[in-house]
Amino acid sequence: MKHFLNTQDWSRAELDAVLAEAARFKRRRLGDELKGRSIALVFFNASMRTRTSFELGAFQLGGHAIVLQPGKDAWPIEFDLGTVMEGETEEHIAEVARVLARYVDLIGVRAFPKFADWSVDREDRVLRSFARYATVPVINMETITHPCQELAHALALREHFGSDDLRGRKYVLTWTYHPKALNTAVANSALTIATRMGMDVTLLCPNEDYLLDERYLGWARDNVAESGGSFAVSHDIDSAYAGAHAVYAKSWGALPYFGAWEREKPMRDRYRHFIVDEAKMALTDGAVFSHCLPLRRNVKATDAVMDSPACIAVDEAENRLHVQKAVMAALVAQS
Amino acid sequence: MKHFLNTQDWSRAELDAVLAEAARFKRRRLGDELKGRSIALVFFNASMRTRTSFELGAFQLGGHAIVLQPGKDAWPIEFDLGTVMEGETEEHIAEVARVLARYVDLIGVRAFPKFADWSVDREDRVLRSFARYATVPVINMETITHPCQELAHALALREHFGSDDLRGRKYVLTWTYHPKALNTAVANSALTIATRMGMDVTLLCPNEDYLLDERYLGWARDNVAESGGSFAVSHDIDSAYAGAHAVYAKSWGALPYFGAWEREKPMRDRYRHFIVDEAKMALTDGAVFSHCLPLRRNVKATDAVMDSPACIAVDEAENRLHVQKAVMAALVAQS
Amino acid sequence: MKHFLNTQDWSRAELDAVLAEAARFKRRRLGDELKGRSIALVFFNASMRTRTSFELGAFQLGGHAIVLQPGKDAWPIEFDLGTVMEGETEEHIAEVARVLARYVDLIGVRAFPKFADWSVDREDRVLRSFARYATVPVINMETITHPCQELAHALALREHFGSDDLRGRKYVLTWTYHPKALNTAVANSALTIATRMGMDVTLLCPNEDYLLDERYLGWARDNVAESGGSFAVSHDIDSAYAGAHAVYAKSWGALPYFGAWEREKPMRDRYRHFIVDEAKMALTDGAVFSHCLPLRRNVKATDAVMDSPACIAVDEAENRLHVQKAVMAALVAQS
Repeated sequence: MKHFLNTQDWSRAELDAVLAEAARFKRRRLGDELKGRSIALVFFNASMRTRTSFELGAFQLGGHAIVLQPGKDAWPIEFDLGTVMEGETEEHIAEVARVLARYVDLIGVRAFPKFADWSVDREDRVLRSFARYATVPVINMETITHPCQELAHALALREHFGSDDLRGRKYVLTWTYHPKALNTAVANSALTIATRMGMDVTLLCPNEDYLLDERYLGWARDNVAESGGSFAVSHDIDSAYAGAHAVYAKSWGALPYFGAWEREKPMRDRYRHFIVDEAKMALTDGAVFSHCLPLRRNVKATDAVMDSPACIAVDEAENRLHVQKAVMAALVAQS
Repeated sequence: MKHFLNTQDWSRAELDAVLAEAARFKRRRLGDELKGRSIALVFFNASMRTRTSFELGAFQLGGHAIVLQPGKDAWPIEFDLGTVMEGETEEHIAEVARVLARYVDLIGVRAFPKFADWSVDREDRVLRSFARYATVPVINMETITHPCQELAHALALREHFGSDDLRGRKYVLTWTYHPKALNTAVANSALTIATRMGMDVTLLCPNEDYLLDERYLGWARDNVAESGGSFAVSHDIDSAYAGAHAVYAKSWGALPYFGAWEREKPMRDRYRHFIVDEAKMALTDGAVFSHCLPLRRNVKATDAVMDSPACIAVDEAENRLHVQKAVMAALVAQS
Repeated sequence: MKHFLNTQDWSRAELDAVLAEAARFKRRRLGDELKGRSIALVFFNASMRTRTSFELGAFQLGGHAIVLQPGKDAWPIEFDLGTVMEGETEEHIAEVARVLARYVDLIGVRAFPKFADWSVDREDRVLRSFARYATVPVINMETITHPCQELAHALALREHFGSDDLRGRKYVLTWTYHPKALNTAVANSALTIATRMGMDVTLLCPNEDYLLDERYLGWARDNVAESGGSFAVSHDIDSAYAGAHAVYAKSWGALPYFGAWEREKPMRDRYRHFIVDEAKMALTDGAVFSHCLPLRRNVKATDAVMDSPACIAVDEAENRLHVQKAVMAALVAQS
């Protein structure tokens, strides 16, 4: 049984089939691919787009989504094995996942890092525990990667460039400033999918402290070896933007300071100029701009960039609906 | 594209058509007017009736409602233009509204005043921002007016009097005591719809400090000039109730003390006797009584009044379902 | 009009019919028994299984569930009669129940004890107030009893034993340790249904302080007089487990210490050895084990017991879906 935990677990042919199905769903809103089926959307963190697009996608295909928020309107869950559960958790993931899997056909999980210890968070334990115990497919709704966003992004790029083949396009993934230290998930994911699609990818970040986890850098190197693209790291804004066809922005916390953000803050504050603005966009080869949203305007990108025709962030957000319908349909069809 | 922000924006013929459709929905529960369609219900404040009736109305017409609570289980939203978003807000209304409009066919918004500065709150910025950026119709689910309640109220009065023509009926909108200073929305709305329907309307309140905003007093004067009804303000309980055919109660905070409720409180506490009780109702011409709910019993109205046959508050609440189905159907049909 | 407040209010024939219908629903997921119908799920306390299974059950039968959380995303509710509502409550149950009953076809209520005064909590006032004022059937989603759990449990036992006739089976309801003093609802319910089904029931608890309320002990005695089973209380672990065919575990607070749990705690802490473990299960006649969930592993039962083939807790949890569909269908069919 296949889950959708990372695009890296799926073959390129499988991903292309999902993207093609998503494009069809974009033209034809309703279907019966999930008729009488259901998905549990388990949110350990807040959501607007993800929750709306999954709930709506299930409805439009004849199914039903149940939104659960453990520790908020459901019981707090234990993930460790063998624990004597005398603390705050009332229920073990073994029971939660097994019971949910009796009720529903799919389980979506959003679980951001705890931001205490990256060596723990990078194990993606909440997601992997659901996948381990559930007897139905599990979908990653953003943990330490965000594969649904990847597909929405890839579809938006294909639409923009008018081609399913993104090879030969220069793609810049740029770190941007944000007053808080954020999850690396979308950055990991952008790097993964852009290299997978064979683009010429530059990871632009202020310095080596902002490099992503070696796992994802490795995926990027593997992907370009396979796809024929290229991958480089840069700390120079001008050369990174020069000639770019696509600029994708994201803020994230520096992993060496993980969980000690007050120590990182003075360094981070020096890099406010990584904001995506018109001057930087003018260096590109008429690049398209996108961001996963939510986005703090005039902090990550200026109003002018956000409101320009080059910005496809809203298209990408819309595509979440279409790609998730395709993922759900594909996962249900395998059973 | 028409929104449903205020009844005052709709022609009398349009309102009558919606009320007629609502009466039909009351007799025929199910339909396909919203088949495969969806509405986002964006709640910045708590709700029981509004949420239930919209969610159910969408279902009964073949659609689906998504309930979103920004700042609670979704991101806090920025409404100012040009802000450098370094504070608490994570996302700008421009993106929220544009993205939601890609997902759904209708957007409902509940956003009560902030109660800090009436000159700000009276701009109804949250609602108007959604209407500005969304490319789908927006419905007011109560902000500084409550037009859905107006329609439910009008339908209940028509049912009670057995006629669509409410002219010649004496209508008293009475302020009542409540331990907290409340929103003027339902009072503004009751005044608006009762004058629109050509009734002889008395606004009964303790003193001039409790007058409603000049915008709504102006609408009332305009409406009676058009509809042939009448509008007067009174601070005398006995003469206001005398001969009334309909009594509608609501508590609200005095606008001159807006956001400084502790200063208003000693004044407000002197007017507890505005409670709707049997003695006052005995002064009327067998008047019907209603209230928008929720209602604090024995504070705003006595148990005896609430449990009497004259009370149609529950009928009015039921009508929320029917009128909102009619509003949703009308808004979707225009596209 | 029949509600589903307690199994004790329903005849054995009615319960058997519901269980038979539930077994059919288990084989056939979809139906139209609730087509166009709706249920309000009113949660005064958190839920995972109950909410998911009711919401999903309504969907699978063509209906729709509305989840309401009073005091959280709806208004706090007053239950006393004649109160001058100047405190925290904004709305009286009379209006809440009457209005909800205009919107929906069924109302489910979860309202745990307040844990201040058992003589108050044992009146089950929240549930009974809904049943008093609502003009549609009310379903107990766990208050001071948990009849939906009873049916799910009975169905799981019937499935396990391969027979609808559970007479002659030795059934042990054992108290277990938990760091907090919990509701007696599921214990009351297990006692009620096991005796109703004519089993030979032993209530195993540390001492007389842990006896259940006399109302439920009385139901147990009445039931075995009618059904031909037997009922005994024991404080001896070894003899209670000896020869058992079914072990059901639950933790609950000692009623004489109700609301004064700190005083109970030293006593309770002496009984951690009531945990269900392999040694105790070895004393039985190959007994099946179950629990209502959520369960704290290695506190109430060991990992070994939970992960053994004898554990049917997940089957029982699954059955919540099927029995609740049968209850909803039966209640709607009567109108």
